[in-house]
Amino acid sequence: MTDERATVGVGMVGHAFMGRAHSQAWRSVGPFFDPPLHPVMTALAGRSAERAGAAARELGWASVETDWKELLRRDDVQLIDICTPGDSHAEIAVAALDAGKHVLCEKPLANSVEEATAMVAAAERARARGVRSMVGFNYRRVPALTLARGMVAAGRLGTLRHVRAQYLQDWLTDPRSPLVWRLEKDRAGSGALGDIGAHIIDAAQFVTGQSLTGVCALTETFVPERPLVGGDGTGPVTVDDAALFIGRTSGGALASFEATRFAAGRKNALRLEINGSAGSLSFDLESLNELWFHDHTEDPATAGFRRILVTEPEHPYAGAWWPPGHILGYEHTFTHQLADLLAAIAGGTDPSPSFADGLQVQLVLEAVERSAAGGGGWTPVRTPEGSA
Amino acid sequence: MTDERATVGVGMVGHAFMGRAHSQAWRSVGPFFDPPLHPVMTALAGRSAERAGAAARELGWASVETDWKELLRRDDVQLIDICTPGDSHAEIAVAALDAGKHVLCEKPLANSVEEATAMVAAAERARARGVRSMVGFNYRRVPALTLARGMVAAGRLGTLRHVRAQYLQDWLTDPRSPLVWRLEKDRAGSGALGDIGAHIIDAAQFVTGQSLTGVCALTETFVPERPLVGGDGTGPVTVDDAALFIGRTSGGALASFEATRFAAGRKNALRLEINGSAGSLSFDLESLNELWFHDHTEDPATAGFRRILVTEPEHPYAGAWWPPGHILGYEHTFTHQLADLLAAIAGGTDPSPSFADGLQVQLVLEAVERSAAGGGGWTPVRTPEGSA
Amino acid sequence: MTDERATVGVGMVGHAFMGRAHSQAWRSVGPFFDPPLHPVMTALAGRSAERAGAAARELGWASVETDWKELLRRDDVQLIDICTPGDSHAEIAVAALDAGKHVLCEKPLANSVEEATAMVAAAERARARGVRSMVGFNYRRVPALTLARGMVAAGRLGTLRHVRAQYLQDWLTDPRSPLVWRLEKDRAGSGALGDIGAHIIDAAQFVTGQSLTGVCALTETFVPERPLVGGDGTGPVTVDDAALFIGRTSGGALASFEATRFAAGRKNALRLEINGSAGSLSFDLESLNELWFHDHTEDPATAGFRRILVTEPEHPYAGAWWPPGHILGYEHTFTHQLADLLAAIAGGTDPSPSFADGLQVQLVLEAVERSAAGGGGWTPVRTPEGSA
Amino acid sequence: MTDERATVGVGMVGHAFMGRAHSQAWRSVGPFFDPPLHPVMTALAGRSAERAGAAARELGWASVETDWKELLRRDDVQLIDICTPGDSHAEIAVAALDAGKHVLCEKPLANSVEEATAMVAAAERARARGVRSMVGFNYRRVPALTLARGMVAAGRLGTLRHVRAQYLQDWLTDPRSPLVWRLEKDRAGSGALGDIGAHIIDAAQFVTGQSLTGVCALTETFVPERPLVGGDGTGPVTVDDAALFIGRTSGGALASFEATRFAAGRKNALRLEINGSAGSLSFDLESLNELWFHDHTEDPATAGFRRILVTEPEHPYAGAWWPPGHILGYEHTFTHQLADLLAAIAGGTDPSPSFADGLQVQLVLEAVERSAAGGGGWTPVRTPEGSA
Repeated sequence: MTDERATVGVGMVGHAFMGRAHSQAWRSVGPFFDPPLHPVMTALAGRSAERAGAAARELGWASVETDWKELLRRDDVQLIDICTPGDSHAEIAVAALDAGKHVLCEKPLANSVEEATAMVAAAERARARGVRSMVGFNYRRVPALTLARGMVAAGRLGTLRHVRAQYLQDWLTDPRSPLVWRLEKDRAGSGALGDIGAHIIDAAQFVTGQSLTGVCALTETFVPERPLVGGDGTGPVTVDDAALFIGRTSGGALASFEATRFAAGRKNALRLEINGSAGSLSFDLESLNELWFHDHTEDPATAGFRRILVTEPEHPYAGAWWPPGHILGYEHTFTHQLADLLAAIAGGTDPSPSFADGLQVQLVLEAVERSAAGGGGWTPVRTPEGSA
Repeated sequence: MTDERATVGVGMVGHAFMGRAHSQAWRSVGPFFDPPLHPVMTALAGRSAERAGAAARELGWASVETDWKELLRRDDVQLIDICTPGDSHAEIAVAALDAGKHVLCEKPLANSVEEATAMVAAAERARARGVRSMVGFNYRRVPALTLARGMVAAGRLGTLRHVRAQYLQDWLTDPRSPLVWRLEKDRAGSGALGDIGAHIIDAAQFVTGQSLTGVCALTETFVPERPLVGGDGTGPVTVDDAALFIGRTSGGALASFEATRFAAGRKNALRLEINGSAGSLSFDLESLNELWFHDHTEDPATAGFRRILVTEPEHPYAGAWWPPGHILGYEHTFTHQLADLLAAIAGGTDPSPSFADGLQVQLVLEAVERSAAGGGGWTPVRTPEGSA
Repeated sequence: MTDERATVGVGMVGHAFMGRAHSQAWRSVGPFFDPPLHPVMTALAGRSAERAGAAARELGWASVETDWKELLRRDDVQLIDICTPGDSHAEIAVAALDAGKHVLCEKPLANSVEEATAMVAAAERARARGVRSMVGFNYRRVPALTLARGMVAAGRLGTLRHVRAQYLQDWLTDPRSPLVWRLEKDRAGSGALGDIGAHIIDAAQFVTGQSLTGVCALTETFVPERPLVGGDGTGPVTVDDAALFIGRTSGGALASFEATRFAAGRKNALRLEINGSAGSLSFDLESLNELWFHDHTEDPATAGFRRILVTEPEHPYAGAWWPPGHILGYEHTFTHQLADLLAAIAGGTDPSPSFADGLQVQLVLEAVERSAAGGGGWTPVRTPEGSA
Repeated sequence: MTDERATVGVGMVGHAFMGRAHSQAWRSVGPFFDPPLHPVMTALAGRSAERAGAAARELGWASVETDWKELLRRDDVQLIDICTPGDSHAEIAVAALDAGKHVLCEKPLANSVEEATAMVAAAERARARGVRSMVGFNYRRVPALTLARGMVAAGRLGTLRHVRAQYLQDWLTDPRSPLVWRLEKDRAGSGALGDIGAHIIDAAQFVTGQSLTGVCALTETFVPERPLVGGDGTGPVTVDDAALFIGRTSGGALASFEATRFAAGRKNALRLEINGSAGSLSFDLESLNELWFHDHTEDPATAGFRRILVTEPEHPYAGAWWPPGHILGYEHTFTHQLADLLAAIAGGTDPSPSFADGLQVQLVLEAVERSAAGGGGWTPVRTPEGSA
């Protein structure tokens, strides 16, 4: 069997949780989406040759590099997929783009506005040469949220009044849970805010098509000391355990956000509800195949929130998979992301969300942090121009 | 059939929505709770003799007064039930208490902290003479919320981390909805904030046993002009359409509140979720017979939010009504309130919530309004002492 | 206050669970529905003067009789409300109708087809003299089910394909639960079948507008011996614990029914789902304010089961009670029943469901029992003519 | 990177819906489960070289055969995966087993009891030589159902009283839906009964650990003629559109089953509820990550059905995938099936469900068909011995 399909060689950096998720997507995008560019899982970069080799064999990568910079030198790699913690995103992404490699970078784009700004600049330079970049806010590709965005854009909700977003997890509820890297400011940038708060900021802005203009925020570290990983004693938690903020959007809606790792019993509850003058939408990632829609223009005698099972041929992405009613899971969002990325590269267009979108989320995070540091007062979100 | 049960004569002021709800409760409390004092529905006061007479006949009151002050002079009335808008609460309640009548006053206690403070003082004076007072936060007597408070008090949730309260309605979504009295600051005091926001503040504080210590708030009037009721032209909406605030509680939890009349499709969604170190609770008034509980101390393999149908003999109030599984409605909360009020009067104890509790809610509302007026900055809730 | 409203004197027989429910409805129908005939709670009949007197005082009845036949002789009683167990329904109802009293008879109409047939004959005789009769299938007056019937009748479901009805309770799950009268064939006629199975048969036929034409049935008594009430030793359970049957309807749909008192955790789960060529409806009495509707004619991209909160002014009965979104409970169905009964009596029309409707349910129950006794074979439901 | 892992060469027959699902599982089982035998996707068999070639390239198979018999001759193929319609299962499976190849055969095992019996015999012969066979009831590997079985086996439900199973789809609701092969008795064997009814029979028996002993059944073809696929005119539907049956289990429980393709709005609603003396379980495939459990031994004041999100490390299969709360989809059940199959082959044990299990389901289907043909009378399920 000869295969004359156009291909793109991929080099992935990092092979932890995100690397596993991305690998499954790289394996799956071909069979289900038949993209105009078929990915070749060329090389995996990790600092330990042994662990990277084991991961490559397990996850299906053809070769290994112990220095990500080597990936940039390889001719058989045209796309760099960055799956490392946030503190290394900027260096890798800028170098890769400058080396002419397309880049997919996990979210959050960076750990600071400064880094993110530099990355946007690199993306702009690269774009002029036809080199593409994308930040991995994978939840945009939950079919229910893609559908939601389309419904808002089509006016099904009318004028938006309220945005209500929560990302509730519970894995830090137990104070004996150890001090992992996600709880260290140097590595993670921030805590619940940057990790899961970034997701709801992006999801809310994506679905509404509006951006946050300012916020009042409170953050808290409920458990300030935790046991060290694999060692004696405790160390300080230097990031937030939870972040709450309220704000206003560019379209005049009121918005409420909450990100926490202390919501006992909520495992992965990314929730979004939007109320408009013509209808409302509601979503919960723990039921990711469902979108709830209330059409306020209907006869009130038979109106109500309806559960749309977003698994039908009419729905975004869903038709590529299984027959009606057969549900998808978390990992499929990454495959959808790649399908769109490969289509964009092949088509010579810019994939979305862009690095600029990632920077804008960073600016919201920055406003939240400044408001919280100042006691909750109103803090406008800076515009990218202002940060340049 | 002779009836030698001890009785209390009731005089009710007002006969609109709240008057109807209270009347049904006065009729029902005897048959179902057999209270130590049986109420006699003696007199109804309303400004129009004709309308009050019709209401009395419809609702089961034995006589009518067109001036509520007459009720205070009647020997056959020992308890005054105030069901008027908030702007008249203070005058009636203070006069009634000073006249030696027990008082049940609808919420919010008053339209201002000043009025509420005066009412608390009157309640203190009256109490010294064995005269009782209660403010009508009826949702404390939703069996699910009474059960919730008991569970929190028993430590089932451990240390509280998060309080998440919303009261979502949609009756103002349509900009053509008219300018009713609830949209006029002079009559209503405030908008969604005082009407339904007061309910979630009280409910959250009641269930958690903690009080709010400070807030950051935003309010909004989405539709500033509305058609006049029964007339030509439009008039200004002088209250808030929606209020959002975040804050901290006396026990160190983070709290998020939202009250709105613009949540299309949400009819009466008073929602409360509380997360603690040992468990979580969740409630929605649209399903008022249900309380959801997650026990975080259980084996994680079989743990999850359980739906407690709060209709069993083991549950607060429910055993007085129907067999297991037969659900109760909105109106039953008022009957429960009366059962407790009558038991307190007969037992010579103070019913709860007290006027002081009503004042404390007023102080939270005041902090919210001040924060919102000042752009959302952190605003401590004043203590009652500070307001005296 | 003079009251010149037309009235009807009511005599109620029995004052246990059903008597309490009916009493609350008699008290409530006036204030909320302002019926053309206002009920006067004239007399309560019970065998023990002491217990009946206490019940009358508690429930609001003006006088007491220890022999229900006395009610028939009283000129101030024009309507007899039968709330006794099924074995006495026929005697009381026939005598009352023949005495010219309107009759409301609790369900099931009787314990046998023979008794029910005699009651229908009496109802026919009485009807010729303007005397009305009604059987108390109160769940027809759950607003959600009344709405459901209207939607089916209006063609919103198209051609019906499936009826799926369950009534799940759990109060016999524990084998130590005692041998109450409902478990004795002489008193109760049958077990889960006649008690709760009758409700789902009537509800399904009411909502669909179709009748069952034949069934295949299985019944079971899981716990054949139970402790005697208030005594030593055990006695035999002589009725079914659970009944399952499948069948066909007059309109060509397939139907599935299940009634059980052994469904651990299901307290009062009367569930009904109907699938048609144009849509589907789903209902659960544990959430009695909700009706779920799927409109199969809609754009599949945004179609789904919607939760109609049946509490709006547009909905059957709901507008008489509270503002939008304020939920109703179990007891309100009885008040609705009385509102319709009083309107029919005043209007000179026949209320529904009639005794003939009650007989038809009895004929279905009979077919179920015959099928089950014969091992589950297909058993046509007899027509009333065939039973005469 | 050398890879010294033990491998097994796989040959798959068929590449439609099931072939796609199996291929994704063959690709995924290695990375996530690291099985003791790693599969090599050696060859795909399909009648058309062109279509099979395209499918092989798309789905990741290394070579193509146009005659499945060639797979049996290849030394690099040790396992045959049968993904064809039911009418060819017996021939392929028997030949493959006799050729010494392990076999995974899609469900239903065959289109008749006779074929299934022959397959069981072949499986017995092969087993003696260490050759393994498995029938693909993939829903046994939904983590929630695997967990459910474990809970029943551990006694968490006590004595089982009720089994309630439904498989509701709606793709035939529209009478203009065409006459696909699944509607032809020659190809499909039966309609809803064999396709989705078989799934709920197996799932119910798997979870309860009990088998059906007899049934009363009704079937129906609502739309007897449908448009021919890709042609003019119509043809007869020769299978059932819906099948309902009630029965008894080997442990004394009552059971109710319904399979239909006419439940408008239900896309893929495989539902199972089990009530026992100590608790209940409830499941719906449209929410496949959730299992609902009621523990009837708990304090009734806080008992209720709890939603277990079956995505935690403690749960079957789930730990191999993502962090807590990240949901799985339909396709993962196939991967779990392969993980268990490969472990069994490597470990020299028999995988489950066996061909004998498949035959037993076939015997239940046969009893249903005989009961329905005879008008619904009680029909015992034959034992495999009786069919030999």
